Amino acid sequence: MNICGKVIGVRQRTKRDPEDLHKCQLPEGHDGACSEYPYLASMVGTAPRVRNKIIRDATKTTGASWNSEDAGPNRISRWTMLMSNEELDEVGIPMSKLSPIIQKKLREKAASYDDCMGAARKLAWQAYGMLNAPPPDAGTKSYLESFYGPIHPGSTTCLICKAQLDFSDFESARRGRAEIETAHATPREHNASNVGFAHRTCNIAQGNMTLPEFYAWMRGILERNGH
Amino acid sequence: MNICGKVIGVRQRTKRDPEDLHKCQLPEGHDGACSEYPYLASMVGTAPRVRNKIIRDATKTTGASWNSEDAGPNRISRWTMLMSNEELDEVGIPMSKLSPIIQKKLREKAASYDDCMGAARKLAWQAYGMLNAPPPDAGTKSYLESFYGPIHPGSTTCLICKAQLDFSDFESARRGRAEIETAHATPREHNASNVGFAHRTCNIAQGNMTLPEFYAWMRGILERNGH
Repeated sequence: MNICGKVIGVRQRTKRDPEDLHKCQLPEGHDGACSEYPYLASMVGTAPRVRNKIIRDATKTTGASWNSEDAGPNRISRWTMLMSNEELDEVGIPMSKLSPIIQKKLREKAASYDDCMGAARKLAWQAYGMLNAPPPDAGTKSYLESFYGPIHPGSTTCLICKAQLDFSDFESARRGRAEIETAHATPREHNASNVGFAHRTCNIAQGNMTLPEFYAWMRGILERNGH
Repeated sequence: MNICGKVIGVRQRTKRDPEDLHKCQLPEGHDGACSEYPYLASMVGTAPRVRNKIIRDATKTTGASWNSEDAGPNRISRWTMLMSNEELDEVGIPMSKLSPIIQKKLREKAASYDDCMGAARKLAWQAYGMLNAPPPDAGTKSYLESFYGPIHPGSTTCLICKAQLDFSDFESARRGRAEIETAHATPREHNASNVGFAHRTCNIAQGNMTLPEFYAWMRGILERNGH
């Protein structure tokens, strides 16, 4: 499906975003007003936190888990991390003053606007396919299915362990962290084909490994333990 | 081997420790002065940071990784966590004012002084058995071997993945965290038979699972992924 792609104004635009960055994601030739996340409208009333999580995970760098003293800016747009240190200095992110480790961590989150939009769409498709998910409206369903295939409640599995994911686990937070996280088959490649939802436990265990590396690593452990 | 067990004064004793807590760990009927960590003397000159890590991991609660605002006291003695909330209040740890989650986390680290001493001895034995470890002096070697068997350089493996551990990985820190951590076959049981060194990656992946649970969990993932 081709999207409309018309440049739109958004409420949360910062001075770091070029004026023509945000684009309508509705189908080409759509009726009515342009919209950036039309396929998440179904969730505004039923699961606003999941809606916000999808947008945040798809478009933002993560919150700093390192000590705040030398932490970089928290939750900035991933596409901002495609700018040079000089450009970032000009928009108030003093990259060159951050430690090399923090700089690297931030740069690893870089992704283009279009890749972020693809990731958001893919995550939304996965969320609607979870057990106990709120059903998408007809327009949303056909829109997302045109990209990634049929949405069956209960068909979404953890990207890593392939067990079924339950939509209600989005809300069962432990120490403030949801049981479901956004994961990457290959770390640091942020786009629709590489992202998916996963159990927090699985995501933590995968760490910096790619999925094939992670599976091979586990096979090695089991072999050395006589399994 | 029976230890001397004579009560000794230690430099770092706090008001939280009973006066008769610290005991000499040398063999019964030893010559010379009593000592709490005689088997770590070999490392004072060669690997002081590893020596300190063994003592710290064996006897202290972990550093707070949660936000410092509502964090409990950092790195207190594990045996202190055997005291009641009322007793702790009296020695300056206002347990009942901490959040239930933090209280639980602290209580999970509780262990008796003797279990901590056993854990330290076991970790020292494992450290000397690593590839590239500084050799223990003869007295230390025979002392530790009397508890846990022969020390061969290169025989110590990761508690979790069973791959060989390299003593030099103690020093190869990443973001301030060593590549080798103290792990527990069953989380929250802190004693000689349950502790061991492990790769940081393995320890993180094991999380709150026991080792049998962790291996079963990995088998499930591999099966569901067609391995």
